[in-house]
Amino acid sequence: MTLKIGVIGTGAIGQEHIARLHGKIAGSAVVAVNDINSDNARAVADRLCPGAAVHASGEELIRSPDVDAVLVTSWGPSHEEFVLASIAAGKPVFCEKPLATTAQACRRIVEAEIAGGRALVQVGFMRRYDAGYRMLKQVVASGGIGDPLMLHCAHRNPTVPAHYVGDMGITDTFIHEIDVLRWLVDDDYVSAQVIQGRRSRHAGEGLDDPYLVVLKTRGGVVIDTEIFVNCQFGYDIQCQIVGEDGTASLPEPATVPMRKGAFAGQPLMMDWKLRFIDSYDVELAEWVEATAAGRVTGPTAWDGYFAAVTSDACVEAKRTGQIVPITTMDRPDFYR
Amino acid sequence: MTLKIGVIGTGAIGQEHIARLHGKIAGSAVVAVNDINSDNARAVADRLCPGAAVHASGEELIRSPDVDAVLVTSWGPSHEEFVLASIAAGKPVFCEKPLATTAQACRRIVEAEIAGGRALVQVGFMRRYDAGYRMLKQVVASGGIGDPLMLHCAHRNPTVPAHYVGDMGITDTFIHEIDVLRWLVDDDYVSAQVIQGRRSRHAGEGLDDPYLVVLKTRGGVVIDTEIFVNCQFGYDIQCQIVGEDGTASLPEPATVPMRKGAFAGQPLMMDWKLRFIDSYDVELAEWVEATAAGRVTGPTAWDGYFAAVTSDACVEAKRTGQIVPITTMDRPDFYR
Amino acid sequence: MTLKIGVIGTGAIGQEHIARLHGKIAGSAVVAVNDINSDNARAVADRLCPGAAVHASGEELIRSPDVDAVLVTSWGPSHEEFVLASIAAGKPVFCEKPLATTAQACRRIVEAEIAGGRALVQVGFMRRYDAGYRMLKQVVASGGIGDPLMLHCAHRNPTVPAHYVGDMGITDTFIHEIDVLRWLVDDDYVSAQVIQGRRSRHAGEGLDDPYLVVLKTRGGVVIDTEIFVNCQFGYDIQCQIVGEDGTASLPEPATVPMRKGAFAGQPLMMDWKLRFIDSYDVELAEWVEATAAGRVTGPTAWDGYFAAVTSDACVEAKRTGQIVPITTMDRPDFYR
Amino acid sequence: MTLKIGVIGTGAIGQEHIARLHGKIAGSAVVAVNDINSDNARAVADRLCPGAAVHASGEELIRSPDVDAVLVTSWGPSHEEFVLASIAAGKPVFCEKPLATTAQACRRIVEAEIAGGRALVQVGFMRRYDAGYRMLKQVVASGGIGDPLMLHCAHRNPTVPAHYVGDMGITDTFIHEIDVLRWLVDDDYVSAQVIQGRRSRHAGEGLDDPYLVVLKTRGGVVIDTEIFVNCQFGYDIQCQIVGEDGTASLPEPATVPMRKGAFAGQPLMMDWKLRFIDSYDVELAEWVEATAAGRVTGPTAWDGYFAAVTSDACVEAKRTGQIVPITTMDRPDFYR
Repeated sequence: MTLKIGVIGTGAIGQEHIARLHGKIAGSAVVAVNDINSDNARAVADRLCPGAAVHASGEELIRSPDVDAVLVTSWGPSHEEFVLASIAAGKPVFCEKPLATTAQACRRIVEAEIAGGRALVQVGFMRRYDAGYRMLKQVVASGGIGDPLMLHCAHRNPTVPAHYVGDMGITDTFIHEIDVLRWLVDDDYVSAQVIQGRRSRHAGEGLDDPYLVVLKTRGGVVIDTEIFVNCQFGYDIQCQIVGEDGTASLPEPATVPMRKGAFAGQPLMMDWKLRFIDSYDVELAEWVEATAAGRVTGPTAWDGYFAAVTSDACVEAKRTGQIVPITTMDRPDFYR
Repeated sequence: MTLKIGVIGTGAIGQEHIARLHGKIAGSAVVAVNDINSDNARAVADRLCPGAAVHASGEELIRSPDVDAVLVTSWGPSHEEFVLASIAAGKPVFCEKPLATTAQACRRIVEAEIAGGRALVQVGFMRRYDAGYRMLKQVVASGGIGDPLMLHCAHRNPTVPAHYVGDMGITDTFIHEIDVLRWLVDDDYVSAQVIQGRRSRHAGEGLDDPYLVVLKTRGGVVIDTEIFVNCQFGYDIQCQIVGEDGTASLPEPATVPMRKGAFAGQPLMMDWKLRFIDSYDVELAEWVEATAAGRVTGPTAWDGYFAAVTSDACVEAKRTGQIVPITTMDRPDFYR
Repeated sequence: MTLKIGVIGTGAIGQEHIARLHGKIAGSAVVAVNDINSDNARAVADRLCPGAAVHASGEELIRSPDVDAVLVTSWGPSHEEFVLASIAAGKPVFCEKPLATTAQACRRIVEAEIAGGRALVQVGFMRRYDAGYRMLKQVVASGGIGDPLMLHCAHRNPTVPAHYVGDMGITDTFIHEIDVLRWLVDDDYVSAQVIQGRRSRHAGEGLDDPYLVVLKTRGGVVIDTEIFVNCQFGYDIQCQIVGEDGTASLPEPATVPMRKGAFAGQPLMMDWKLRFIDSYDVELAEWVEATAAGRVTGPTAWDGYFAAVTSDACVEAKRTGQIVPITTMDRPDFYR
Repeated sequence: MTLKIGVIGTGAIGQEHIARLHGKIAGSAVVAVNDINSDNARAVADRLCPGAAVHASGEELIRSPDVDAVLVTSWGPSHEEFVLASIAAGKPVFCEKPLATTAQACRRIVEAEIAGGRALVQVGFMRRYDAGYRMLKQVVASGGIGDPLMLHCAHRNPTVPAHYVGDMGITDTFIHEIDVLRWLVDDDYVSAQVIQGRRSRHAGEGLDDPYLVVLKTRGGVVIDTEIFVNCQFGYDIQCQIVGEDGTASLPEPATVPMRKGAFAGQPLMMDWKLRFIDSYDVELAEWVEATAAGRVTGPTAWDGYFAAVTSDACVEAKRTGQIVPITTMDRPDFYR
């Protein structure tokens, strides 16, 4: 009972996912690939999933009777098209974030999925699969600290490349918190504010760094997150939940406690790729299992749409300095 | 060379300070006391500083030729009067916080001290004498983490009594952060905002709890502080400074690490009185030493005035939900 | 290219390994099972690896042309027989610890494997596959703390059942440290001493608890390990390496830091089964991969023999209170 | 009511104690000094306690009617003489460690004090006054972890000077643990063993470094202590008590948690003088108070004698590699 998967987009993340699905995760095989660069698609297939068909287009791959489910890891602007085509073909589709590049496009996907009448779409927000976030959610859900009242978070990166500018702190960095924190507190956002900190001398041209994003939920929970992408010292993800009866925090990644050179402590990761690397394995293994069982258990199209609306509001809040309301269409029963 | 001190106000904090100055700190003696309740003053003197004169009024005590320096620990509304009288008498005066109950009154003290031409006034912000804050300031001053960009703080209390209502979270609780954080980053505040969190079910009537206060400094540093006075779990003071090259945090009070009952960790203090108890000793010992040398080395009248203006702005920010500017008179050269 | 595995012994650990090999790890399938209770073998096969042949004897399973490699998870006293039969059949064999119940039996396996001329045997010491121990070994190997001089370890269990008596603290508990610490410091043991601690009131009849085992290596490294199987508070594995230039410790398992009820800390595991559960996955995945490539990369028959000799010496040291030499046959070139 | 103190020995530690007793601690004054180098004694007095008499001999100082109590901080070999003279003069005496250089000499002091019929002698084991050890003792005494069964300790120093050789790891370093651990578990030692670790390349000529000392108490508690005086990384004092129901450890000194340069942790002290510096203040303040009240509340002559006997046994255990019994005279009722 092997799930036969077609992969659209054989770039870096596509290749990593192919290696997972074809060699590491039991119960799945990559049987078809497509890329805008078909030579690359061929080379990747030969190396990672020999024998897989190389399709001339994403649409062709989606329609192929040999493909049970679709993985979209192509360029962001193409996501909407391939996800809609998968829905049209009635095939489960896993789409890397973002679900689409605008909230409007995400909404079209939501409406198409509802119209089709079957849950098919999952979005690649991998942090929900991190062991630490899961433990944290379990502590909160168990009532161990009472109802959440406030969250204090940080998303810190040692440095960013020169092409990281403008609103990418929201759209590329904070987007992860947008999804995972909403899932963590199981509540929707109603407003966003961005408070500029003192600018670091390490911030590149065209970049505000660091700043504080403050989200408020329907239930009144306040969530502040420091975004600091040139913090120098490490890739550092923090999340503390203050509840009515106590606090609970995201576990630090396990590293070796050392005493050396007049210092006691633990190494920090410098490479963000390593921080959530295990989450990808769990994410895809659970997707394969759920898909084989005809279900969607991960982040839905609705979650992708909500993240897009929130991200837009944060970008506006950053530009205006105002408290910006977060307004979405009503949550369809389909996603309850 | 014993500094002869007169104490106005022999309530709880007055008695503690008398015990310090008369029995514990070398180089000082309490030679005179006064209280609105003169029986109490007499009893306290008999117990803690036998032989001390009991004066009928604060003014009389201040004028007494036997008194070298004055300690004001009376009811807040009386502070202004006694501090001004001490200045008029040309005597050094240590005044417990608040310096006066309004910013305007604090300003009158500032102007009187300047007019007198001698530095005489110190305000009882004891956190500047805490070993942890001092270590933290030293790390920042040494350049160890680069320039401060953001501060994340928390002031948590397990519970508060029923009479703790209204703005006391600002005027009684956050007032400590107002002074110590300004001293820590060596920068003045320019605005305040208060963001209400979800209300705890443990919050008493007439009390918003918890909330987030966001201060901004002239240099652009953003300081967020969670005020949560019914947090249940402990008296918990947090302060993390995010600098250009790293972070540095207030040390936790040293307690015994334990492993017990499926848990590994350390006891937390429940009683705020114990948290900074050592600071009072250091504060008064340094005040005695500086006073004997004719100097003021602790928080000045200007610091008391600045704290009062900031506190007023926070109260307004809490009431309005707006970002409120913090505007003071220009800093006189006298306090540079 | 699926490795076809036959499993001898379908008890608890056998079933867990079958589930891993048949459902979770890519590249392997369980095609044959055997158990002393053949009804049980049949039921387990139906549930976990439907279609697998149920053999009347371990020998028959081993000889079956359908079986590429053998997994031995039967009762300890039967290990020698099945491992020797696998060697005779020229088939790779993974044997759960112990390799055999006596050092002499282990030696027979070593000699049979050498005589056969091919590396075939791996022993189930799973701690070498724990992420924490691996990180720790990497730190030491990188020279980060200089040469190891001393190790301070602890193996603590909340409670043990009534049938846990006598020398089981060595043979069932410390046996894990015996293997993993030798691998960690890459050095052989030369002597053992056992120092009885004060007996806990929680120790059951016929049990010394806790005690300290002190091992010394050829290179002079001293390793002390506290064995305490009724420690009440949690399943707690500690390992600190003191090197010439610093110390490095085994990471604690990542759990959620909490502040609650006047305490700050993290939950401890109570169930030993959860502590190294991920190691089993890695262990078998690597065994499948190495076996498919015709290699043995895990703990060898020599390691199993060395552990047995060391365990015997520790038991004698515990009985006599003396420092007991650890003497093995010379290490064959085959295992270098 | 000022306690008038005479100080014999005005070297480094003597000067520090004079500064404490004369300028910092309320209720005491240094009125007389003596040193083998009388010019030094004069200069120290002029600087730290002007007006103090400079005596030609320790005996003369002790006999001086102006001296209420004696502090002995002279060269170790002279301690016995001055302590005995103080006892003979019926004056309270605080003697820096060691009480005397041999167990036999300590015994003579014990017998003289008993013969005199009054408790007069206190020995300068300052660790009993460390806030951390006191918290730890309180946790144990409260029953929080059940009865102590084992202790794991370490005494690590970054480096030692060239003249630190031979048995100084016992007589100068471990001597602190000998006293404070006995006080901590409130039990006497019955045997000592020394286990040599692998020798560090940083160990100077004539020095074994590191090694493990194992003490056993009458009640069966096993105490292992790593002595490592060239550990390079910091001055590091560890003490973990394993009890029947949990563990409790000596708190780390409070320092500033930092994240910097791919590392998260806290600075370690490099200078042993800073580690227990506050303990000296508490020790002398309590001594002054107890002495004024006619009592001895700190380490007694008996404790000094017991430490000397234990130290001798450890030295022999180090030399022989054997388990050496620790045998003292019976504890006199005088010291119960």
